[in-house]
Amino acid sequence: MVTDARLIALDWGSTRLRAFLLGAKGEVLASKQSDDGASTLHGPAAFAQALAAVAGDWRTHHPGVPVLACGMVGSQHGWREAPYAPCPADAAALAAQTLHLADEGARIVPGLMHDGLQPDVMRGEETQIVGALARHPELATDACLVLPGTHAKWARVQEGRVTGFATHMTGELYALLRQHSVLARLMPADGGTAPDTAGFIAGVDAARQPGALGHQLFSVRTLGLFKRLAPEQLPDYLSGLLIGHEIAHELQGGLPARLALIGEPTLCERYALALSRFGVTAPLQLDNTAPAGLWQLAQALGL
Amino acid sequence: MVTDARLIALDWGSTRLRAFLLGAKGEVLASKQSDDGASTLHGPAAFAQALAAVAGDWRTHHPGVPVLACGMVGSQHGWREAPYAPCPADAAALAAQTLHLADEGARIVPGLMHDGLQPDVMRGEETQIVGALARHPELATDACLVLPGTHAKWARVQEGRVTGFATHMTGELYALLRQHSVLARLMPADGGTAPDTAGFIAGVDAARQPGALGHQLFSVRTLGLFKRLAPEQLPDYLSGLLIGHEIAHELQGGLPARLALIGEPTLCERYALALSRFGVTAPLQLDNTAPAGLWQLAQALGL
Repeated sequence: MVTDARLIALDWGSTRLRAFLLGAKGEVLASKQSDDGASTLHGPAAFAQALAAVAGDWRTHHPGVPVLACGMVGSQHGWREAPYAPCPADAAALAAQTLHLADEGARIVPGLMHDGLQPDVMRGEETQIVGALARHPELATDACLVLPGTHAKWARVQEGRVTGFATHMTGELYALLRQHSVLARLMPADGGTAPDTAGFIAGVDAARQPGALGHQLFSVRTLGLFKRLAPEQLPDYLSGLLIGHEIAHELQGGLPARLALIGEPTLCERYALALSRFGVTAPLQLDNTAPAGLWQLAQALGL
Repeated sequence: MVTDARLIALDWGSTRLRAFLLGAKGEVLASKQSDDGASTLHGPAAFAQALAAVAGDWRTHHPGVPVLACGMVGSQHGWREAPYAPCPADAAALAAQTLHLADEGARIVPGLMHDGLQPDVMRGEETQIVGALARHPELATDACLVLPGTHAKWARVQEGRVTGFATHMTGELYALLRQHSVLARLMPADGGTAPDTAGFIAGVDAARQPGALGHQLFSVRTLGLFKRLAPEQLPDYLSGLLIGHEIAHELQGGLPARLALIGEPTLCERYALALSRFGVTAPLQLDNTAPAGLWQLAQALGL
């Protein structure tokens, strides 16, 4: 039995619940996960049950250990809504706005909102950013933190605070086009092919040329039609095109001193390869930093 | 009984078959349509049956009247493949490459291919363009012909020839995002709402600002989330965003002497409204010009 548990840290997204038992220095003592994502649960009782299912044993063995959660669990359709904190924000600001569910003995980190030309939001990534800054303090002065995914985030950090960010629906567009669009017709069935680096790079390089995304996407079809790319290259070409457009836009304003990629290693590798086509080499790559961020926020809260 | 029928003109797209019986001056004597689109039919016999179903009576009453078809009927998965004609091309070039199905007494107009940075293709629109130029010869010198739709086409016409064109997957992206994406969640069910002009214009104006499409799309969600747009405005905002991005890109290279919209009147009106936000006012609007184009091509073929 683990004796020095100090925090139950929950990375509670739309589709997955990842739970970490953290020790006296924030180290991961144990972890579990379940499919009880926030979008699959309806009503507070369902969330309480999902927490009990994944972390009930830990709570029994470590009575009184605090629970801190981040992610879609705090959305309008989550356990309880934790209103967004505005940018610029640092760990202290997020901690100050953390929602306390006293009856459940649990706390929910707020998401972050950036009100630019259009409002933008994140939930969960703000905690990963806090974790990244804790583990790599050199990023705090001036950095761009990129969190690839269904809704990829590009966050600017200056003097320890997130000063702004932009969401790109890159992962969702890929899934939609891969599964439901005319572009899918020339491709092999999903999941059956190994990644094709040449196809991916061709897509990134196409995105470096002028051209609207809605136009360039059609080349997935025509390059297949004219057999300039093989069917098994087309999914990676599509991926390269979408990621390339995202990067091309974000690099328009110039680069900050440092750039880091945070998230699933395979996906971060794809972004690193795409960035290299734009002349950005070897960015720092970090795997999920949510547990580190939750630990940092728990410290700020005095838990 | 009609006695002076000269041509059975078929506008045979992916999802619909539109048949026109044309008279001695190319006037429409009768028309019929069916759901026997090229994508719904498999094998030559199915196409022959679909033709018989829609135009069998006409062929019985007017033995020997020629049949000329354009559209996806000539694709790889159509009745028989009519290889693309290359740009630049005029009506004579299209006529010269028309495919003759001698046994069926039918001919298929080739599609058009433009080999730019990426190859681009059209099938059916080339015939609509021929029809537009026949009806409005003033467009032949230097014009941009815009054909909105699932795969919108922007074609450049110079000295009577199509010199190049670009496809934008605007209509398909709208349908995918409207039906399957996270953006749909805040919207009312599809089909239940009247068009919202203010929402549409807000989308077009957002597209006039710098910003990647994949990023700006996320604002459909956030503007709904923060109640800056009502749920029933979001579909039109999304439509404006997509059409606006298409137009913003196409206008980057400057405008030709004339611009015309060809297609379904309601959709052309949306494009005209969007264009007005970019300072382009009152473009010529033409409804389906495929019958006029098929007539013109039949003349060029000496049918």
